[in-house]
Formats: sequence, C-alpha cells, structure tokens
Amino acid sequence: MLDVLDVPDGPRGGTGSPGPGGGPVAVPAAGVLRRCRAVVRPALVDAIGGLHPWTGEMAAYALGWADTAGTPDPRGSEGKGVRQALAVLGAEAVGATAADAVPAAVAVELVHTFSLLHDDIMDADALRRQRPAVWRTYGTGPAVLAGDALLARAVTVLAGAPGDHAAGAVRRLCGTLDDLVSGQAEDLRFERRPWTGPGAVGPEQYRSMAENKTGALLGCALALGAVLGGAPDPTATAFERAGRHLGLAFQAVDDLLGLWGDPAATGKPVHADPRRGKKTYPVLAVLAGGGSAARELAALLPAPAPSPSSPPASSPGIDAATAERVAALVEEAGGRTATREEAHRQLEAACRALRTVPSARTAARELDILFTGLLDRTW
Amino acid sequence: MLDVLDVPDGPRGGTGSPGPGGGPVAVPAAGVLRRCRAVVRPALVDAIGGLHPWTGEMAAYALGWADTAGTPDPRGSEGKGVRQALAVLGAEAVGATAADAVPAAVAVELVHTFSLLHDDIMDADALRRQRPAVWRTYGTGPAVLAGDALLARAVTVLAGAPGDHAAGAVRRLCGTLDDLVSGQAEDLRFERRPWTGPGAVGPEQYRSMAENKTGALLGCALALGAVLGGAPDPTATAFERAGRHLGLAFQAVDDLLGLWGDPAATGKPVHADPRRGKKTYPVLAVLAGGGSAARELAALLPAPAPSPSSPPASSPGIDAATAERVAALVEEAGGRTATREEAHRQLEAACRALRTVPSARTAARELDILFTGLLDRTW
Repeated sequence: MLDVLDVPDGPRGGTGSPGPGGGPVAVPAAGVLRRCRAVVRPALVDAIGGLHPWTGEMAAYALGWADTAGTPDPRGSEGKGVRQALAVLGAEAVGATAADAVPAAVAVELVHTFSLLHDDIMDADALRRQRPAVWRTYGTGPAVLAGDALLARAVTVLAGAPGDHAAGAVRRLCGTLDDLVSGQAEDLRFERRPWTGPGAVGPEQYRSMAENKTGALLGCALALGAVLGGAPDPTATAFERAGRHLGLAFQAVDDLLGLWGDPAATGKPVHADPRRGKKTYPVLAVLAGGGSAARELAALLPAPAPSPSSPPASSPGIDAATAERVAALVEEAGGRTATREEAHRQLEAACRALRTVPSARTAARELDILFTGLLDRTW
Repeated sequence: MLDVLDVPDGPRGGTGSPGPGGGPVAVPAAGVLRRCRAVVRPALVDAIGGLHPWTGEMAAYALGWADTAGTPDPRGSEGKGVRQALAVLGAEAVGATAADAVPAAVAVELVHTFSLLHDDIMDADALRRQRPAVWRTYGTGPAVLAGDALLARAVTVLAGAPGDHAAGAVRRLCGTLDDLVSGQAEDLRFERRPWTGPGAVGPEQYRSMAENKTGALLGCALALGAVLGGAPDPTATAFERAGRHLGLAFQAVDDLLGLWGDPAATGKPVHADPRRGKKTYPVLAVLAGGGSAARELAALLPAPAPSPSSPPASSPGIDAATAERVAALVEEAGGRTATREEAHRQLEAACRALRTVPSARTAARELDILFTGLLDRTW
C-alpha cells in the first residue's frame, strides 16, 4: 500500500510485500478476517442452502464458492468477508460472543453480495473478482433474481435472530438498505452529470454518495454486531459512525488505485477510472479547486453518458494516452495529495469514533488492525 | 367474467357488464378497493416521497401515478390495490381499525410493485398496464435499482410499524419474500423445461409455483393486517391460507384469459400464452392426462427457450393459426373445464379458510365481495 497511501505509524494490517526472507510477511488483518469467516461460514452456508436451488447456485458463484458447474472454484475468488468480520468484532467489542453476531454477519454479507450482483448489472461491469459477473454468466434476468433472493434472505436471517434484539437490528438494516440504494442512485446519476458548470458534481456530493454506497454497510455491520450483542443504542450509533468513516477512507484508497494503482495488484487496467469517465475524488477535488489546472483537466475528460437511461458503458471514455495525461495533471494539481489526506482524515475519524466506546481489549485491538489493514489492497 | 368462469351464486364482485339501463352496473368490489386505497394513500405517498428523487420518479411511474415527466398520468394506469385492501380488511376482520393495517398495506403494495418491476425485466415484458414497462422507459439498470428501492422501503415501513407487532410482521413478510423469489425462479425455469417426457412440468408443480408467485403475497397481505391488528398467530395463518388459495384461483382465471380471453378486455393479444410458449394450467392439465389429445397437443407446442440464461423472449413461440389450434385442442380435451374447476375449488377453499376465523361482520362481508369479485377481470 505504501506506494498509494502512506499510513501513519500505529497498528498495521501489514503490506503483503516480501518479508526479510523474501516470502510474504504475515498480515494480521488477514488472520482476523480468517477467524471471523470461520465462525460465520456454517450459518452462511445454511442461508444459501435454504434458497431455491437455482438462485442458490448463482449465489454460490457470486460468493466465489463455486464455479458455474457448482463445484468448488479452484481460482478461489471468495471475498475477504470484511463486513461479516466487522459484525463479529462489533459484538465482541461490547462483551458478547462471536456467535451472538452470526445472524448480523450473515445478513450484511448477503446484502453486500446482493449489491455487487445488482450493481454489476447497472454499471455494465462484466468482471467481478477476475471472473465473469453473475449477469454475464447466467443472464441479466436470473442475476436480478439472485440478487433479490439474497436481499430477502438477508432480512429473513436477521429477523430470525434469537433474543430480543432482532427487531431493532432489522430497523437498522432497513435504514442502511435505503442508504445503499440512494448511494447507487447518486453514483449512476453522477455518470450523466457534467464535470464542470451547472449540475457539476462537487467533492461534498461525492463524499455523501460514497458514504451511502460504501460506508453505510460497513457501519451497519459493526453496529448490528453490537446490537445483537446487547449494546445500547448510542454504542451502536458510534460504531455505525466509525464504519461510515472507514468506508470513506476505503473509497478514497479505491479512487487512488483507480487512477494510479498497479494493474498487477488491482486486476484493473491502468488508469481504469479516467478511461471509463468515472467521477472520483481526486479529479473532482482538482476541478473544485478551479484555476488553469481545472480548466486543462476539464478539457481532457470524456463527455458524460448521453441519457439517463443509457448504460454507463455507453460513455465515450478516453484513450490510454489521454488518461495518462489526466492522471499526471491531477497529480500535479494536488488531487493525489488531497485524496491521501482525505483517506487519512477519514481513517482517523473512524478510529476516533471507535475510541468513544469502551471496548473489550482484544476486539478493540483487532478492530484497529482491521481498520488500518483494510486500506492496504496489496494482499 | 361469465364467459370465462361461471362463478357460483353468492356474494358477487359484479360483472361490469351493461346494467338494465345500458350503463355499467355498480361493482361492489370496486367500492371496497376504493375505500381501502383512500385509507392507505397518504402513507403510500409518504413512503415513495422518502425515496431518492430518481427512484421515487420511477416508483411513481410504476405505480401508475405519473408519466415520465412526473406529472399525473392521464391514462390512469394505477392498479386496483388488491393487496393493500386485503391488509386493511385483515385488520378490520379481527376487530382492529384500518389505520392499524396501514404499514402492512403499504409494505405489501410496495413489494407487489417491486416484483412487477423486476419480473418485467426477467420476462422481457415490454408492456405493463398498457404502458411501457419501467425497464423500457428508464433502462434495465435503473429499473433494477427502483425495484430494490421499493423492496427496501417495504421492509422499512413494516419494521417501523408502531406497537409490538412489527417484528412478527417482518418475519412473516420475509417468509413471503423467499416464496415470491422461489416462485419466480420456478416460473423462469419452467420456460426452459420440456412439455412432456423427463423433466416435464406437471400441474402439481405448476400449482406450487403459482402459490409462491401469486398466492403468497395475497395471503401475506391478509395475514399482516391481522398481525398488526393484534390477532393471534393461528388467525393470521388461517388468513394466509385463505389468501394463498385466492391467489391460485386468481392464477387459474389468468390462465383462462391467457388462452381464451377477449383481447379488448385483457389488453393482451388473442391466445397470448400459447403464442409465447408459456406453460399454464389448462395446457399442462391436458398434457398430464396423456392419450392422443396430449400427443397431438405436444406436437403443436413450441420448443422451450434454448438455454437457462437466454431471456424468455428467445423462445421461438408459435404462429396465430397454431395457437388457435392449441386453444381449440385444449378445450376439446377438457383443459378449459379442468381450469374452471380448479378456480372454483381454490375459491371455495379460500372462503372455507376465511370462515375458520370468527370475523367482524362488515369486514367478513367485504372480504367475500372482494374474493369473488377479484376473479372478474372485466371491470
């Protein structure tokens, strides 16, 4: 990560870069995630197993558990399980057990998978974790259905949580679903809005979109774990705020990678975001700064997608040379620095929000490890 | 309706056919629906108003409230509001007020709109209530998003119902969502399965699909009204059973109209279902009966859609003359009679299930009016 974001000293998720002996160094965050996935896995398998066999097959494919023949996927395309880990740590932080968090962990993981599945349709993204997206493999209609099945199952699992906290948890998840959909709506609309002038997207609007689209579910995961763990409402709300800031930090790093990331590490083409005309923080920050750099940059950027109903793929985009010039110009004009600062600021705000809650020591340490480690995308 | 289904004597929803003076006769069911819509409308408007403006615009279009410019739709394409009415009557039947049912009524109406929106994408249906479907007007991606927004809002509204019954209501709605998605999955799979031989769809499998796809939400609507009205679980479950049978009766009438309905009344082409190769009860009943009629019929029917991921529209279908021959053959072989009998049987089972619950008199009468009136599609 060091080439993208200079994380300050403190608990680290590790870099995944070669260790002293040449082999990869241990990544503490990876260990935290692995432990949490192991706790949640049986219930997640149960939740998928209860689906209609066809939607279950698509869900297993979307989760990276199986290829299209339903056999375990040798490419190991499974996600890290960040959201389920946050739910587990949220419960443990308030003195409950990992088992208490499991319905919340399953719910947020299913909601995340649902949103990837539907967003890939909306964004016309053909690849997801180096494999064809569900809609490319099974067709658009079936992919819509599989997403619906996952969303329905997520709420079902959470509503069925034992104890007295299910109702409050469901209300919290519902608020997050509303936010998620609003965030995706904003993101789709942004692609059709101009870079400058009336109707242009400003960095503040971008941040609000990213908080809904990325931050809300991370915050919800942490909060739901605390809710099912019996925490009072203010604790859950503080955790939710922490997760939202984490999401904004995560998005800022994503934006850095989308402009300057190494294709070998990101799995995306070089200068992926400007090439497809995607509006991200570094570019919007420079444009908002005005002046000659902003004017020069605006002249290079592609026109927005032609109509509200046309898919994002219909955006004309720009060629590789222009994208390289965009990346250089954004860097010269301070967009890269501004985005690094945004990531740091949000990460610090996340950690501050966490520290407002007196947490069980081990969980607090693991949350610190996870929060900083998550911003490292090289492992 | 009389040309499609001879409803037995008893409370009637009315026929909408010319009355003695030549004008349309009053339709009691229409009055019941109108009263319930008026009770629910403000909360439904609020629920849509709380959406992101863009998804809200699509939702208002889907509900038939507005055209694409957001102005009231002069064509009046609003649905009857059957599900919201069932929720209201479910509460009133157990001695609660219509107001108690409102969150349930809003939730089921939003779920219904969500399912129409997504099903039209999956089924490649370009028209809905004589207007272009949402995905044709706004694009597939935005229509997916609008459906997601409606589903999320449905659960949000129900989870926020005042009193102590919201949690139980949400659990019941979740079970219904699972059933809805399973029913749609079955329906999509049926289009790719053969008419006869190994893997053929039998009438029992068809009934199970229709119960999930059509019956579950009708049953849920009635049950949720009762739940929010404070009814004990067995009452809600009896209501749910009643609504499921009603759904099966409704589907049987739909199948009769899809084969022999008057295009002027249905808004669909003549012999719409066989032309597009849709598997429905009358045809499946004849095929299941075997013999020469079944063999002759099977030879006329179109091949199933080629692959699991191809859209239903890729089914080859059959021409008008062949469809007419299919309709005649199904009628000769008893498929029309069998489907009428199915509709009667399910309507009677629905009314029987209703009568297992001692209900407030006015609501019981209105439910009777609604149950029989709903099978009449001519008004």
